[in-house]
Amino acid sequence: MSGMRPTGRLHLGHLVGALGQWAEFCRVDEAFFEVADLHALTTAFEHTETIGPSTREMVLDWLAAGVDPERSAIYVQSHVPEISELHVLLSMIVPVAWLQRVPTYKDQIAALGPEIATYGFLGYPLMQLCDVAIVRADTVPVGKDQLSHLEFGREVVRRFNFLYGPTLVEPQATLSEFPDVPGIDNRKMSKSYDNQIDIADDEATTTKKVRSMVTDPQKIRRHDPGRPEICPVFSLQKIVNAPRVQWIEENCRSGALGCVDCKSELAEKMNDFLRPVRERRASLNAGDVVRILADGAQKVRAIAKETLADVKSAMKLP
Amino acid sequence: MSGMRPTGRLHLGHLVGALGQWAEFCRVDEAFFEVADLHALTTAFEHTETIGPSTREMVLDWLAAGVDPERSAIYVQSHVPEISELHVLLSMIVPVAWLQRVPTYKDQIAALGPEIATYGFLGYPLMQLCDVAIVRADTVPVGKDQLSHLEFGREVVRRFNFLYGPTLVEPQATLSEFPDVPGIDNRKMSKSYDNQIDIADDEATTTKKVRSMVTDPQKIRRHDPGRPEICPVFSLQKIVNAPRVQWIEENCRSGALGCVDCKSELAEKMNDFLRPVRERRASLNAGDVVRILADGAQKVRAIAKETLADVKSAMKLP
Repeated sequence: MSGMRPTGRLHLGHLVGALGQWAEFCRVDEAFFEVADLHALTTAFEHTETIGPSTREMVLDWLAAGVDPERSAIYVQSHVPEISELHVLLSMIVPVAWLQRVPTYKDQIAALGPEIATYGFLGYPLMQLCDVAIVRADTVPVGKDQLSHLEFGREVVRRFNFLYGPTLVEPQATLSEFPDVPGIDNRKMSKSYDNQIDIADDEATTTKKVRSMVTDPQKIRRHDPGRPEICPVFSLQKIVNAPRVQWIEENCRSGALGCVDCKSELAEKMNDFLRPVRERRASLNAGDVVRILADGAQKVRAIAKETLADVKSAMKLP
Repeated sequence: MSGMRPTGRLHLGHLVGALGQWAEFCRVDEAFFEVADLHALTTAFEHTETIGPSTREMVLDWLAAGVDPERSAIYVQSHVPEISELHVLLSMIVPVAWLQRVPTYKDQIAALGPEIATYGFLGYPLMQLCDVAIVRADTVPVGKDQLSHLEFGREVVRRFNFLYGPTLVEPQATLSEFPDVPGIDNRKMSKSYDNQIDIADDEATTTKKVRSMVTDPQKIRRHDPGRPEICPVFSLQKIVNAPRVQWIEENCRSGALGCVDCKSELAEKMNDFLRPVRERRASLNAGDVVRILADGAQKVRAIAKETLADVKSAMKLP
């Protein structure tokens, strides 16, 4: 089970990172992919008008990247009421102090300001557990920064099972380490830096972005020797142009390859790499997304209802 | 809209207090009466096995007292998922500090110990608002000790309507002041003092309890003058034996009436007073309760789904 907040169009970093892994999950096991709109509310409750369009664009990218709706459930968090019900039930056994101790809580307040400290924001790691627990997921891919959330969630599961008998599955982490994908300014590729190459960009836009990339600042003239290890153009060549990487490295270092030519080749290969994904994306429309999300919610709710019934029964609710 | 935690059998204090008012509400307007099982979990999450039986006994008492399931909705809180969904959505706009400032939060932690400070317990006043808001209730009967909760709830509604446009109803309080009903030991009648006369007691038990009541400690011998104003037997006479109150007062003060006789008369009148309620109770069974709660949940959910759809649409969720 995994999910993303609906942030809109995804980029190359997502494609070679999480989405590649998700497409692989679909091939090997039952998989659940959630549009975490409730999580989005924890930090964006004042600007919700983008959640709907962002959901559509993001799911189109998921599908384009090969996440298979036939072999997984793709769904919107708020379309599964059982997640909220489970959240309320589990909230009764979770000390406030456990939530306040999750490291990201104080970090995020420091970063985003005290007005972010809502009741919903405080409960965010518990909601993450509910996302996982409601589908009885046994494996969750997490980055290092999310390990403390998962550990919190496992503690809640153990407390529940201790109080009411074995009912919930204690999820395991699979640590996900993806290659660092630099953006066109050589910082980490990220929408918040506006340095990304979007999956849904057209080829001309991609070419223009690649041509505007920074390179080794010491390689000023065409025949100056370059340092591929600090150049984001070279990092992206490794991703989309693997067979040519050795040649490029040698000729950059020697000064035989100029940055303009190197970028032209990258732009071409980048578009080659993204073309099948973009073609799949173009073959889909908003109606497909609506249908897939409705199917996904139905699939998830069938399991979620069972989990919730077990939880209520373990808690001896009327 | 009003509700009670499922605490089991109710007593005379409930009957002449809240339940009398509820029966009256049914006669004048659309009314909603909730078994607050989720609220019960906020303080009793370690002892949930009583919630089911307590729900059944309590609802039997509601019905016996004249709360009319045809003219109201009687339902269990956890049977209405929309309450939990609304709770999660509203949690996003409620600062943690608002909840921490509700006076009862710190009071209850001081009274019940720090282990009560769970995330669910902290969110209790917000859940109360959701109970009210989900059925668009405009009026809530509250005691003075609950006024701060209602004021908190009104503030949440105003914040929601400010952020997302007018959607939720700002509930008004009707301050409820009921006569003080003393228990057999002259403290406030309460299950926690084990000094109550239960609606469901049989007549022999009631008679025995009345005979064991404390009276004016200065009236030691039969003909000593008594002070009705400090005697719980006299307080209960006022409730169940109004036509005889003046005579009793005079003859207690003069010493003409002894406590044994006074209690005998009270026991008889108490049983007369409770007999029709008890007969109605005896005519009902657990199956009736199940059916009434199922009907009630269905009625409430029809409204709750509409409210929730309005809320989600105002928040522009996908």
